Amino acid sequence: MTLETVSTSKAHGGTQGVYRHASSATGTPMTFSVYVPAHDPGERLPVLWYLSGLTCTHANVTEKGEYRAACAEHRVIFIAPDTSPRGDGVPDAEGYDFGQGAGFYLDATQAPWSANFRMRTYVEDELPALIAAEFPMADMTRQSITGHSMGGHGALTIGLRNPDRFRSVSAFAPIASAMRCSWGEKALTGYLGTNLAAWRVHDACALIADGARLSELLVDQGDADGFLDQLKPELLREACAAAGIPLTLRMQPGYDHSYYFISTFLPDHIAWHAERLQA
Amino acid sequence: MTLETVSTSKAHGGTQGVYRHASSATGTPMTFSVYVPAHDPGERLPVLWYLSGLTCTHANVTEKGEYRAACAEHRVIFIAPDTSPRGDGVPDAEGYDFGQGAGFYLDATQAPWSANFRMRTYVEDELPALIAAEFPMADMTRQSITGHSMGGHGALTIGLRNPDRFRSVSAFAPIASAMRCSWGEKALTGYLGTNLAAWRVHDACALIADGARLSELLVDQGDADGFLDQLKPELLREACAAAGIPLTLRMQPGYDHSYYFISTFLPDHIAWHAERLQA
Repeated sequence: MTLETVSTSKAHGGTQGVYRHASSATGTPMTFSVYVPAHDPGERLPVLWYLSGLTCTHANVTEKGEYRAACAEHRVIFIAPDTSPRGDGVPDAEGYDFGQGAGFYLDATQAPWSANFRMRTYVEDELPALIAAEFPMADMTRQSITGHSMGGHGALTIGLRNPDRFRSVSAFAPIASAMRCSWGEKALTGYLGTNLAAWRVHDACALIADGARLSELLVDQGDADGFLDQLKPELLREACAAAGIPLTLRMQPGYDHSYYFISTFLPDHIAWHAERLQA
Repeated sequence: MTLETVSTSKAHGGTQGVYRHASSATGTPMTFSVYVPAHDPGERLPVLWYLSGLTCTHANVTEKGEYRAACAEHRVIFIAPDTSPRGDGVPDAEGYDFGQGAGFYLDATQAPWSANFRMRTYVEDELPALIAAEFPMADMTRQSITGHSMGGHGALTIGLRNPDRFRSVSAFAPIASAMRCSWGEKALTGYLGTNLAAWRVHDACALIADGARLSELLVDQGDADGFLDQLKPELLREACAAAGIPLTLRMQPGYDHSYYFISTFLPDHIAWHAERLQA
């Protein structure tokens, strides 16, 4: 694998980079960003993954997330992948909630999507291997994961399926149950067909009902979020209560679904993960 | 004057708004952003103006500036105007450094620019009057000003021309002497013609040489900035030294001209201004 450096800038004492590589999972070039705080020679830093929501690339959180000061303070590497394969040769669809920009962190099985839309393999396997190979300061024994909206769904489902990999899992306004909202139903049907068994590993609440566990979970949700009918935090509350998963669900008064909400609370999440990522 | 609210979002406990109004100075609709921290009923908060650089609108710093946490902590209102009039009926030119997006905070006297490019009047007079009228929590007896690049030039020149209005002035990578760099020469010639006397009130170093004073000045400048040949911080250092203006010029090692640089140090500037803005 070769890694192309698109840009680097010094920020908050560390380096904010944007990188591109040819992905074998998606068959396309993929772009992602990595923030590496200042660190001592030979020092290895823990890693926080951030998965973005519908329509986003790596750039949205990189520009608007306001995470660098907290990552520098707590010495945490911050990685932001794209949300889907992109490009002229990649299938797409009308609407912002399916196709490019809407990968839903799954491996599609239905034509024409199955050739490129393999974001589960990309985010779970290929990109972590690339990071381990190319960023020697990244301590891959200390990883945590968070995300927003569709990326909150990604953080929860990937975290639930890989409990030994992540020290901690959190989310911002996540899609709590992809099987039970119109965004998710459209995506799961389109990418995976109508085999409901294949859907359940891409639904946080179904994974919990089927036995997946987290030792704790932190979720922030704005109560002025215009997409509450898609996100359904109450389903996550019910699933965690039934399974005995300690959920801290903070309904934040007056906050919407935007990066103004995320950037307000992302430093909190970084501090929370950093405590759990200590060597 | 009527003020249209384009958007508001809760952020860091306060409200990030974007507003639009019909400007009499420019003869166009003008858009700006205001962040108002949480405050007590009847409390009045000081104001920090932020002037942006070439090509920018209010949106660049609003999205990428990472100022809200510091403004919330120090209870400072943050105002970000646009950098020029815009629109189909507004003259424009090839290149990013003249015409729309490049107003240089002056009132043009040359056709066709003089009809709309009146950013001095807009930023010095019209917008402050609008803020005073529409934002009752803004204490206009406590104002400070900062800016980046062309906006650093704006902050310095407006601050130097209005020493009684601003408690403090700072800048990020400012154009130190508009008369002595190609960006500035092009703009001053195009907007003001070749009357050099008219140029001097739009050149920070010339204003200082002609007797304008500040009680102190804080400037951050990245030493990896690709535009040092335009910005010329050494000219500002010489002018301040000759005039006895206490200048803190911090050459920040490894930082470039981007918002990754600005967002690293903007919280510092907000804290510095806030000290000087205390009631």
